[in-house]
Amino acid sequence: MNAPGTLYGLGLGPGDPELMSLRAHRLLGKARHVAYFRKAGRPGQARRIVEGMLAPGALEHPMEYPVTTEIALDDPAYNLALSGFYAECAARLRALSDAGHDVVVLCEGDPFFYGSFMHLYTRLVDTHPVEVVPAVTGMSGAWTVTGQPMTWGDDVLTVLMGTLPEPRLVRHMRDSDALVVMKIGRHIDKVRRALATAGRLEQAWLVEFATMPAQKLMRLRDVQGRVTPYFSTVLVHGQGRRP
Amino acid sequence: MNAPGTLYGLGLGPGDPELMSLRAHRLLGKARHVAYFRKAGRPGQARRIVEGMLAPGALEHPMEYPVTTEIALDDPAYNLALSGFYAECAARLRALSDAGHDVVVLCEGDPFFYGSFMHLYTRLVDTHPVEVVPAVTGMSGAWTVTGQPMTWGDDVLTVLMGTLPEPRLVRHMRDSDALVVMKIGRHIDKVRRALATAGRLEQAWLVEFATMPAQKLMRLRDVQGRVTPYFSTVLVHGQGRRP
Repeated sequence: MNAPGTLYGLGLGPGDPELMSLRAHRLLGKARHVAYFRKAGRPGQARRIVEGMLAPGALEHPMEYPVTTEIALDDPAYNLALSGFYAECAARLRALSDAGHDVVVLCEGDPFFYGSFMHLYTRLVDTHPVEVVPAVTGMSGAWTVTGQPMTWGDDVLTVLMGTLPEPRLVRHMRDSDALVVMKIGRHIDKVRRALATAGRLEQAWLVEFATMPAQKLMRLRDVQGRVTPYFSTVLVHGQGRRP
Repeated sequence: MNAPGTLYGLGLGPGDPELMSLRAHRLLGKARHVAYFRKAGRPGQARRIVEGMLAPGALEHPMEYPVTTEIALDDPAYNLALSGFYAECAARLRALSDAGHDVVVLCEGDPFFYGSFMHLYTRLVDTHPVEVVPAVTGMSGAWTVTGQPMTWGDDVLTVLMGTLPEPRLVRHMRDSDALVVMKIGRHIDKVRRALATAGRLEQAWLVEFATMPAQKLMRLRDVQGRVTPYFSTVLVHGQGRRP
């Protein structure tokens, strides 16, 4: 009987393949089994980052989301569909590990920071060897693109999701020095209103596709009505102590 | 006359050399000039991360802090000493760039996230070519070490400095789902009290030397009176939506 294989949650960073860590690159280069999430019918962003970097003959295991934005987040059907999906993906990885195979699971950004891999991790870690390789977060990629330091001295940084209710967004935007808002997409107008209410809109930037070829940097106040991806990032830089 | 050299703010990540990015590794391997901050008489943490990775014959430019914890942060003498120091470091880098030399400036963590390099960046970027290479943050290293995902679904994450006044710490600790507290050191008892007041102490972890050989993971409630480094991290994980 084989020893169980290790399941790696491999953080790839914000999108530029050169921002991958040496460890991620080493594990990827020798991986015989490579798994990744994607929308049905799409190549998948994580898979795209590693294009040309897989070992010859590596077996690919796409895991296709049953729903993403078609069902509302607060609809119980959403949770039910996703929990069945994650259970099934975890079963596939478990079977590979039981057969003695290591599997690299490709993760955009940092796996433990709002990542989909966490839903597999919690289903696997108690029974199978799992290792997580941290990575450059999408937000680090985004603030580097702005060409301005993000946080200074004692600055408080708050990370918010565009999916949150507007009053909660406003409260945190008022009380924090530096701000990151993720999961923007169709929430962009709500996020802009909340920043305006909190008096922070003038300092806000929108970054699309940070560190990728399609990268765009804009002042949020200038892009009324823009259709922006779900993975866009809004940033307000801290202005704290600096000698 | 030479074209001016490029000054790279090179993020190295939390401490494990294998968490450096491919880009950082490539730039480091061909660098003829390598600069880094350190305390007088110490090897310097950034320099230690790259031990054995510099090109043969690379010239090293240590930049030694005139003060760190000897003067209180709110003493005007602290700002004066540091601003003179940063001006002098910037002048050294400017002279190297003007002579046509590229210089790699080693940075722990991510350069734009509470990094010392930012003080040089703002003094250089208007007149000289400067590029920043983002990296795995110290906090990503720390939460990976805990073996628990940090933020889920709509979780709000707030990053706080242990140097902040206790009432402000308490307010944010009450109002945020996930918490990171950095710059701990002699502030550890204040941070513990603030977490207890906010009802979050039971869930708090202390990570020392994340991803490095001396790495330690402890429950904060269990380490009353511990002497911990300034660069320790306290974490409270988010518990948000998960299918």
